[in-house]
Amino acid sequence: MVSAPTVPEALDDVDIANAEAFRRLDAADPWVVDVAPARDVIPGYTDDLVLTSGAPMAWEDYVGGQREALIGGALFEGLAATREEAVEGFASGRIRVGACHDYGAVGSLAGIYTASMPVFVVENRALGNVGFCNFYEGKEPRRLNYGCYDEGVHERLLHVNTVLAPVVGEAIRRTGGVPLKSLIARALRMGDEVHSRNAAASMLFNREILPAVLDMVRDDVPGVRETMVHLAENDYFFLRLSMAAAKVSADAMVVPGSTLVSAMAFSCRGFAIKLAGLGDRWFEGPPPVHEGKLFAGHSEDEITWMGGESPITETVGLGGFAQACALTLQEYQGGSAAVMIERNEQMYEITQGESSTYRIPLFDFRGTPTAIDARKVLATGITPVMDVGLAGRDGGQIGAGIIRAPRECFELAMTAFEAAL
Amino acid sequence: MVSAPTVPEALDDVDIANAEAFRRLDAADPWVVDVAPARDVIPGYTDDLVLTSGAPMAWEDYVGGQREALIGGALFEGLAATREEAVEGFASGRIRVGACHDYGAVGSLAGIYTASMPVFVVENRALGNVGFCNFYEGKEPRRLNYGCYDEGVHERLLHVNTVLAPVVGEAIRRTGGVPLKSLIARALRMGDEVHSRNAAASMLFNREILPAVLDMVRDDVPGVRETMVHLAENDYFFLRLSMAAAKVSADAMVVPGSTLVSAMAFSCRGFAIKLAGLGDRWFEGPPPVHEGKLFAGHSEDEITWMGGESPITETVGLGGFAQACALTLQEYQGGSAAVMIERNEQMYEITQGESSTYRIPLFDFRGTPTAIDARKVLATGITPVMDVGLAGRDGGQIGAGIIRAPRECFELAMTAFEAAL
Repeated sequence: MVSAPTVPEALDDVDIANAEAFRRLDAADPWVVDVAPARDVIPGYTDDLVLTSGAPMAWEDYVGGQREALIGGALFEGLAATREEAVEGFASGRIRVGACHDYGAVGSLAGIYTASMPVFVVENRALGNVGFCNFYEGKEPRRLNYGCYDEGVHERLLHVNTVLAPVVGEAIRRTGGVPLKSLIARALRMGDEVHSRNAAASMLFNREILPAVLDMVRDDVPGVRETMVHLAENDYFFLRLSMAAAKVSADAMVVPGSTLVSAMAFSCRGFAIKLAGLGDRWFEGPPPVHEGKLFAGHSEDEITWMGGESPITETVGLGGFAQACALTLQEYQGGSAAVMIERNEQMYEITQGESSTYRIPLFDFRGTPTAIDARKVLATGITPVMDVGLAGRDGGQIGAGIIRAPRECFELAMTAFEAAL
Repeated sequence: MVSAPTVPEALDDVDIANAEAFRRLDAADPWVVDVAPARDVIPGYTDDLVLTSGAPMAWEDYVGGQREALIGGALFEGLAATREEAVEGFASGRIRVGACHDYGAVGSLAGIYTASMPVFVVENRALGNVGFCNFYEGKEPRRLNYGCYDEGVHERLLHVNTVLAPVVGEAIRRTGGVPLKSLIARALRMGDEVHSRNAAASMLFNREILPAVLDMVRDDVPGVRETMVHLAENDYFFLRLSMAAAKVSADAMVVPGSTLVSAMAFSCRGFAIKLAGLGDRWFEGPPPVHEGKLFAGHSEDEITWMGGESPITETVGLGGFAQACALTLQEYQGGSAAVMIERNEQMYEITQGESSTYRIPLFDFRGTPTAIDARKVLATGITPVMDVGLAGRDGGQIGAGIIRAPRECFELAMTAFEAAL
């Protein structure tokens, strides 16, 4: 487990606790400082461990694409030679399943981590806490994190491990780390909301490491050209950095007595949230409600839930909470500019404050609505909105859209909160 | 109000001519294909020639910053050893002054070109016509195109000539040319309007040449690292490419009988326009009306006009005509999101059509208002809006803002148009 940030003295007034939780979130200062295999940098990571998205569950509870993704992870890592051996390994406990959040990590869709997978190491320089996210697999719709595992997926993951991540890691180290907060703020002015759209942030990141990259070419470091061309072609590359930045920021919110949401994630079973005032407890409801746009040739009934922790971006006031910055998403995930703007405005009704750094040009640079207050969700009936990719029954991405967190999570959380008073 | 033009039945009908001029503009396909000294690629360029912005004038008519900039150009090119010698050279005709537009070029602010200055060569692949623009001098407020010339300006211009332009030129040639239309369309989705904001377009351009740049580092081409770092730090770099792309697009509009505006430019004396139906004639009015935001420490009475041809971007439906794409400009040039949106919407009332390529996400991807119809300007009383940098009396940039073309230009143009019928 990752060391939790120091917790201040207990505060019992909810408003004061929420103000403090918001202050800590708003002050977060995430920097990406390294790339290394999960086993080398994530505290408590063992070779038999496969992480996945959502509140922790027993192996038997993972079904469909998320179960397939776990099996794929075990095969990729060589923990099993066949599908059957993997299933048997998980069932016997020889291969362990863990929840990303419990290890300071966040997973995209199914969110599979294995010991050899390289992760971004992101440090919150305001508090010293650290978080992790592994790499984007590339544009191919068939990806491990969308429940697919085959020769192509294997090859691409191996390429990330052996070429891409080492080059990016060396560039980050040579650069001396890259500050992510100002970079994200800038990307919001350039059409991103850094969840479903990361085109500007990816370019800004590439620009930050460019001098180091040019030096690496001069120094004949292998794989630099192909890595940079790959990065230049993958507008989604930055999402993993945005998620890790959001994770270390949200982790800073732990404040007893606060009703602010400190994490949102889902598994194949359902959607779950954590409260800043209730530590590591998850409050789980049904799967999210969705509204999406499917790629040609796919239909509504194919949509399946196989996990997702990218809503950590919405938890810190990005993604759906900044969608008025990224109106081009109407093409990708449906809707119109007016609908996106209205949805974004609605989020001010359920949040504690406005970001002092992440701002929306269309709203005359008003800060993004930040830090969901579970009390306000229940009082207004407005549930948090998230921009997400949609997975298909048979694996792979079949579309994109917005989802809403189910009200049940907030009801359970507030019931537990009141019981704990 | 001007009386409605008579509508004949044949091909000289104004509406038909305008539709054809719009079609040619909308079909333009600008590619940057080379960088070379002005003397080597601009037809008719001679060593004694200095170009500047605006409708052509006699040497004596250039005053203030624009006159200083011409003198600076002569000194930079070695056409004179002293200020006095330069003045004498211009007066005697030994050094010639020309208007950029007459040479297929467009100038930023004072818009000084000399024989040795490298220019982007931009080709309209739809029609085969070619246009030029020289290089951005860098972020320093003291620049030749803002009427300044001193040791620092000299050094920076020389650096462009000897390091920056050769590297960028080789990268463009190795890339096989870069298509600018799709790049600009993409930049409009990323917060640029490619006149006063070029942050995304500059990054997108750098991305296009990146593979070539990496090869050049491998091949030990000198100056590559410093050039790429310079490009990465200069968000305005792309403006000159945007201007050259707009120039070749607007030049494609020459159609007898058309009342559409094919160029807008100004000098120290006044603002001028050309009509697609009246060839190379300029119709000149007073200086533009402005509304701006000054950098700290500067005041309104310092604002001076020393030329500007970047309104070629507005001529083709970019810049002020796409400002709803670039709402962050409210910080740089004043105003609010609402005012910018309203101004942008207004431009639909004076234009012939909507771009099929350049689109505004906020308006649900409606094409930008494109091709100003002089008749509509007179009928509505709405004048074209442009996003520009503001120059100070003593040289240098002192702010940014929007300007409006004066109504007089359109009155003169339509009077001449009717006389020519």
